[in-house]
Amino acid sequence: MEFDNPTPGPLLAEINSPADLKKLKPEQLQDVCDELRQFIIDTVSVHGGHFGASLGVVELTTALHYVYDTPEDLLVWDVGHQAYGHKILTGRRDQFHTNRKYGGLSGFPKRTESEYDTFGVGHSSTSISAALGMAVARDLDKSDKKVVAVIGDGAMTAGLAFEAMNNAGAMNSDILVILNDNNMSIDPNVGALKEYLADITTSKTFNKMRDEVYDMLGHFKSAGDKMRKVASRLEKAMTAALTPGSLFRALGFKYYGPVDGHDVDGLRKMMEDLRDVKGPKLLHTVTVKGKGFAPAEREQTKWHASSSPFDKITGKSLAEPKNDDKTELPPKYQDVFGEALVELAAKDENIVSMTPAMPSGSSLWPMMNTFPDRAFDVGIAEQHAVTFAAGLAAEGKKPFCAIYSSFLQRGYDQLVHDVAIQKLPVVFCIDRAGLVGADGPTHHGAYDISFMRAIPNMIISSPLNEQGLRDMMYTASRYDEASWAIRYPRGRATGMDTKDKFEDIEIGKGVCLREGEGVAILSFGPIGKYAMEAADTLAEEGAHIGYYDMRFAKPLDTDLLDEICERYDHIITLEDGARMGGFGSAVAEYIGEKVKRPTLKIMGIPDRIIEHGTQRELHAEIGIDAKGILEQVRPLITVNA
Amino acid sequence: MEFDNPTPGPLLAEINSPADLKKLKPEQLQDVCDELRQFIIDTVSVHGGHFGASLGVVELTTALHYVYDTPEDLLVWDVGHQAYGHKILTGRRDQFHTNRKYGGLSGFPKRTESEYDTFGVGHSSTSISAALGMAVARDLDKSDKKVVAVIGDGAMTAGLAFEAMNNAGAMNSDILVILNDNNMSIDPNVGALKEYLADITTSKTFNKMRDEVYDMLGHFKSAGDKMRKVASRLEKAMTAALTPGSLFRALGFKYYGPVDGHDVDGLRKMMEDLRDVKGPKLLHTVTVKGKGFAPAEREQTKWHASSSPFDKITGKSLAEPKNDDKTELPPKYQDVFGEALVELAAKDENIVSMTPAMPSGSSLWPMMNTFPDRAFDVGIAEQHAVTFAAGLAAEGKKPFCAIYSSFLQRGYDQLVHDVAIQKLPVVFCIDRAGLVGADGPTHHGAYDISFMRAIPNMIISSPLNEQGLRDMMYTASRYDEASWAIRYPRGRATGMDTKDKFEDIEIGKGVCLREGEGVAILSFGPIGKYAMEAADTLAEEGAHIGYYDMRFAKPLDTDLLDEICERYDHIITLEDGARMGGFGSAVAEYIGEKVKRPTLKIMGIPDRIIEHGTQRELHAEIGIDAKGILEQVRPLITVNA
Repeated sequence: MEFDNPTPGPLLAEINSPADLKKLKPEQLQDVCDELRQFIIDTVSVHGGHFGASLGVVELTTALHYVYDTPEDLLVWDVGHQAYGHKILTGRRDQFHTNRKYGGLSGFPKRTESEYDTFGVGHSSTSISAALGMAVARDLDKSDKKVVAVIGDGAMTAGLAFEAMNNAGAMNSDILVILNDNNMSIDPNVGALKEYLADITTSKTFNKMRDEVYDMLGHFKSAGDKMRKVASRLEKAMTAALTPGSLFRALGFKYYGPVDGHDVDGLRKMMEDLRDVKGPKLLHTVTVKGKGFAPAEREQTKWHASSSPFDKITGKSLAEPKNDDKTELPPKYQDVFGEALVELAAKDENIVSMTPAMPSGSSLWPMMNTFPDRAFDVGIAEQHAVTFAAGLAAEGKKPFCAIYSSFLQRGYDQLVHDVAIQKLPVVFCIDRAGLVGADGPTHHGAYDISFMRAIPNMIISSPLNEQGLRDMMYTASRYDEASWAIRYPRGRATGMDTKDKFEDIEIGKGVCLREGEGVAILSFGPIGKYAMEAADTLAEEGAHIGYYDMRFAKPLDTDLLDEICERYDHIITLEDGARMGGFGSAVAEYIGEKVKRPTLKIMGIPDRIIEHGTQRELHAEIGIDAKGILEQVRPLITVNA
Repeated sequence: MEFDNPTPGPLLAEINSPADLKKLKPEQLQDVCDELRQFIIDTVSVHGGHFGASLGVVELTTALHYVYDTPEDLLVWDVGHQAYGHKILTGRRDQFHTNRKYGGLSGFPKRTESEYDTFGVGHSSTSISAALGMAVARDLDKSDKKVVAVIGDGAMTAGLAFEAMNNAGAMNSDILVILNDNNMSIDPNVGALKEYLADITTSKTFNKMRDEVYDMLGHFKSAGDKMRKVASRLEKAMTAALTPGSLFRALGFKYYGPVDGHDVDGLRKMMEDLRDVKGPKLLHTVTVKGKGFAPAEREQTKWHASSSPFDKITGKSLAEPKNDDKTELPPKYQDVFGEALVELAAKDENIVSMTPAMPSGSSLWPMMNTFPDRAFDVGIAEQHAVTFAAGLAAEGKKPFCAIYSSFLQRGYDQLVHDVAIQKLPVVFCIDRAGLVGADGPTHHGAYDISFMRAIPNMIISSPLNEQGLRDMMYTASRYDEASWAIRYPRGRATGMDTKDKFEDIEIGKGVCLREGEGVAILSFGPIGKYAMEAADTLAEEGAHIGYYDMRFAKPLDTDLLDEICERYDHIITLEDGARMGGFGSAVAEYIGEKVKRPTLKIMGIPDRIIEHGTQRELHAEIGIDAKGILEQVRPLITVNA
């Protein structure tokens, strides 16, 4: 069952590229859409994957490939988890069941996977910038290919999208931006822009007013020559002033819409017209996330993605009844964070928290529900999330900024410039640190230790388990001298019993969990579980190596390192982060100056792009699981024996 | 003369804090402004510094401190090089001549310098985010202090500012944003937003139309009851539709303006009114950069800052006649880049280039003038600059992205996600890498090696001199396998004769410039000049150490390192970048695994914030100049002797 492909409908079965789609008559497109939607539901209900976004753009995707000459014309998706229909229509139907699996299709567009994937993506809001670059290249090449960027209303709130609109409008470049307005990020979209778009799409007042104005102008036109002239000029200007989309027009774009994004024939006609309109233009389409699958339309955040099999009609889970056993599964690290935050906030009214559009993914909802005045979803706006936190800290608050490792890359300058340089005590709770699994390269949190370690006034810690996470959060909440990053991975913690009472941990101190000889493993973070496994295995064989949970990549526990250098001949460091510049690198820098210094082997994510798969598969692939550690340790033990 | 303070005018002489300013009558404010402007001119004409921006906001600054109760009310500057007037009015008049000098006042607002500096700054576009954080803190504290952010029209184009507006509008927070519209970044501002603002401030058509509409409505109102009712409703709606600022209103802000930013009394009255208007609001002020100093008004980019004494009337330089000797001064690295780029672009029509609002600072003007279709100033939009480059590369172009090291922090996610993961061959020409001098902590390019080294598919190189820079650019222009970063510092190159013909350099290979024994210095980049000086000094004393110009931090020349490990007992690495995670760290990681490995001392920027001063002063302070190197080497030689 695992790798079964569902049977496509009769039209879809014949579509192996957009050329096949173009052979159909316009009136057949709705049937294609229905089959495409069913094929996505059939596949995801068995194999899991992102879901709601792709269902929402079935008609848009079909119309785009019907009207435009892809891949000659360039279609740029944004975020990309809505590109399932695109993948299925562009020759990947029969591989689609491998989506997001190890060795299978990527869950996102990917240049190396297909010529139809013009730009790899995963993070939001890149499409307009990339499309503008492509449009400029097209103009330099004197080609007349079309460039289309599709971007969601959530992604439109990120600064990168605005920068690109501002530049595209001024360059007057021939580019179509399709705004896919479904009122959602993964969680409901927030921000003034959302309200502005809602106003466009729903305002009856607005439409009524427009009618009245035209009515009045009609009276004037019939009133005499001079009046007619004035009225005509007015009409032209008022049309601009009273048509929605002034925001986009202010940025130099022609605005079209709003149109129904589920009317494939309407979309087709609109695109055929727009293909011949020059310059920067924006088509505002209104869609429903999860369209056509009732449970997903009702609960859009829950159905953003599904990881387990479900009933295709009711949406009910068909997985082993894990849900009823929930209490027996270890909690996710994100939930340990979310619950500890509420407990800490209850004790300290200065604690505030923010997330860039990830209240569900970061488990900020408990805080947002319990202390709604003190927890903020700022929208897809990582830069602002960090500087906003800095502003709060500057006025005496204690911000916990909840952010994924790979998204913190977006707020890097703000971390340096607005937080660290000013020594503001912001706590960064960095979720999805390390390899994340099925989301793959764009989402792996591989670089945070390296990009933060060089920054002064930062503490960088990672717990071995959920108790450690709670205590680190507690200690950080009481520390005001600098900013503090706590990193933890995607997925479940150990399931240990945690204490209700928080305890202070000593800043910059590691702990010895197993004394040994010859070889010492020094780990940073929950990945240390593999080191323990390896050490246990060796102990059973009679070889006793040392094992240390270092807890801090910065400040480094140099006292403990001094002891370790004296005691052992070989050090192996272990982290779920890039080998270059990370925790192991910190150890290398420190011990390099010493006279008595063990050899050092740094284990972590190697210097290449790691593709998608389960976390276990990926850890095994790069050799940082228990087996990989044993392979590194055994030769060293032999040498010393 | 060096540390002379000019004599302030009689009113200014009595103003030691905003409280003194508030004692004056409104009609005296213009005199204060005149004195303040003169004091800035008197100081900068002798001591140098930023210039145009501060002259442009003299009236704004005076009105703000007159109307608002700083520091209780919170005033947040953006970029901050316009804050000279602010510093002078807030108790720093008598220290102002130390501005930007080693140990003196910072050229930017700085929290540790004054309670009036609510938020440190240097990079643009942070003020609205920070102010929103402060406003939220204020609300949580149930205080009624006011929060005001001042932001330029150039800074408004950066995504961070948009993200903050979108969030502030939705939160309905009580905050005033003052848009200081002078139509300039350091270079003239670009982008659709600029044109939109110009339209607001200049459009006669627009104003005439508004008059006509009201005229018509007047007719209707007198025409009968029913018509009057319709007309009244229309008037209200049309007032919104036909008032400028729809862009800001779309983001949830009330819009006021445009107003003359040099009418201090008008500003005062407006602010007194706005102080009592709740919610998010934007005041659009129109100013002239360099106002009141004719040469600066005429040539605004040139007079953005001045580093040498000039005549207070004519603006003519009073420095030693360096200008006439220009040919004898070594070229700046930025100009070596700018000229080489044009030469390469002449040979390869695929070469394109972009800068985020720094065509002068990065010397992109030669390219923009020679190949206007292939060189782009995208505005203050670092994120977009990088993804735009990626889009061009995806379509076969060869982008040279010219960007300052500290500004690349803003485009970090784009570097990872849009360039490196996709192996797109973008060349990053990273200017201002290393300590930059008078601009200080916000502008030091300390972290780029560390934040880039962990990223796969990146080459990181730095030349020893201008010939190296030319050849690296040439080699990078012909390399399509990955992206390539070339870093070089602010300031002048060596003055060596460069060859007209470009030569390929071997990727990932360093060179031995001096063989020796005992100790080897391995340097990365132009800072190597100090290593040579030190090695020369020692050679004169009869001690011959090794010296290697490694050229690449990634890939590392492991063959050469193997040789060096065999030959020497001690390695010292030298770089103008953070010690943590940088070039020296790469060496530490590599040699740590080796059986025969020298001790390693990493010399670079230590793990603390380095303040401002000249580059030489700062290099000396942190001990990475020739003297500092000698201090490290001598003990090692003694030990080996």
